[in-house]
Amino acid sequence: MLVVGELINSSRKAIGAAIEAQDTAQIQQVAKDEFAAGAHYIDVNAGIFVGKEAEYLKWLVKVVQEAVDAPCCIDSPDPKCVEQALAVHKGTAMVNSISLEKERYDALLPVIAGTDLKVVALCMSDEGMPETTDARLKIADKLINSLVQNKIPLDNIYVDALVQPVATNDSFGIEFLDAIQAITTNYRGVHTICGLSNISYGLPNRKFINQLFAVMGIAKGLDGLIINPLDKAMMASVITAETLAGRDNFCSNYLEAYRRDAFTF
Amino acid sequence: MLVVGELINSSRKAIGAAIEAQDTAQIQQVAKDEFAAGAHYIDVNAGIFVGKEAEYLKWLVKVVQEAVDAPCCIDSPDPKCVEQALAVHKGTAMVNSISLEKERYDALLPVIAGTDLKVVALCMSDEGMPETTDARLKIADKLINSLVQNKIPLDNIYVDALVQPVATNDSFGIEFLDAIQAITTNYRGVHTICGLSNISYGLPNRKFINQLFAVMGIAKGLDGLIINPLDKAMMASVITAETLAGRDNFCSNYLEAYRRDAFTF
Repeated sequence: MLVVGELINSSRKAIGAAIEAQDTAQIQQVAKDEFAAGAHYIDVNAGIFVGKEAEYLKWLVKVVQEAVDAPCCIDSPDPKCVEQALAVHKGTAMVNSISLEKERYDALLPVIAGTDLKVVALCMSDEGMPETTDARLKIADKLINSLVQNKIPLDNIYVDALVQPVATNDSFGIEFLDAIQAITTNYRGVHTICGLSNISYGLPNRKFINQLFAVMGIAKGLDGLIINPLDKAMMASVITAETLAGRDNFCSNYLEAYRRDAFTF
Repeated sequence: MLVVGELINSSRKAIGAAIEAQDTAQIQQVAKDEFAAGAHYIDVNAGIFVGKEAEYLKWLVKVVQEAVDAPCCIDSPDPKCVEQALAVHKGTAMVNSISLEKERYDALLPVIAGTDLKVVALCMSDEGMPETTDARLKIADKLINSLVQNKIPLDNIYVDALVQPVATNDSFGIEFLDAIQAITTNYRGVHTICGLSNISYGLPNRKFINQLFAVMGIAKGLDGLIINPLDKAMMASVITAETLAGRDNFCSNYLEAYRRDAFTF
């Protein structure tokens, strides 16, 4: 399981304020905490700062990489911001994300083509957000094929099938989950990734819903998550679900987690 | 989700003692608790009493049905015991279980053929316990076809794909889960059911593993569980997973559970 730590996001009040105040120490502490808790990539997002997004994104990349020996996940819908942030990034970043929206696609593709960047391929097109498994598969198919044709190896592609709230439509959970299963079955070697919080939008007890949805995703083949790695219940659930999904030789990750008290929360 | 309450099982020390002492009040209290907690069927098992199993099983059926307005799940590998217990059962029982083991199959089939009993079809044959998805599917295919030919409607068949410990073999979890997915996809209308506790055998923190394995099963199509309905974390997980699997119109079960404090555990 590839874990992207989601906490350094400007839409979170404390983080937005820290970015604006250029509070290096606070951002670095969050990055250190996420890395220590098991994040493989540190997501950086400065999306709320219109006009200053690129500048702040570059600052975040530098500040985070001074603090931890981990790559960043450059989180912006704006290809120009992504490009500028990549220019200051050391090592191999993840780009979050390309989609099938024409303007975004055309501008970002030349930036990532032929590189060894990890690329999140978001199942979104100019026709809007897909609701069914089939609608997701159509977008995923086009994205995967075009990325591979542009020399991005299958192993570097992380399809985000776009989680939508189950409170809006009863079938939004299972349509997403079935898309994960179909993508991992039809394109052997490609990866899938998602954020979870949209699934529980509008319902009480959201953390528990998100936790179980991650577990259901893993049962269907999901192998990437953009989550809060400091959420012990979530991390324990992910570790256990991976063991149950046949991804843990001799249950050694599970047993190691048990010994360091990962199941007390 | 069909919930079978598993607590009235002679292999549990207190229950074994209560059966031997013919302690009606204790058995009835457990049955009442299971029913109140949401069990649709009350499992009754007297398997530890060699020579007296049939007698005790009949007693359990009578005692349980005096206490609760619910059918029993007659839990015995011995067709003669099942037949005697059915003779005293009111309403439509569940039989747990027929399998492809020749002696058991030949003796139980005439008892259940043409009835409206619910039948657990256990994926076990004289060749032993299946380990892979394919081995499970071969047994399930034979059982489903022969049961349907013997006038048991698909809707009354609950295939138990036989959970085995993940600590024994890394792939035992996912092979089971993939079998659930294949069975529910290939035989539209058939049901699946299982007990969970074998999955976590030999590992620490077993309740949490069992809970997440149920959630993963539901993602794959599982719609029956033989569980302890008094386990609040388990029941909350099942309710939530069903909502996420598209089986809860307008999230109404989820919201009702939230209002009665089902998520505090």
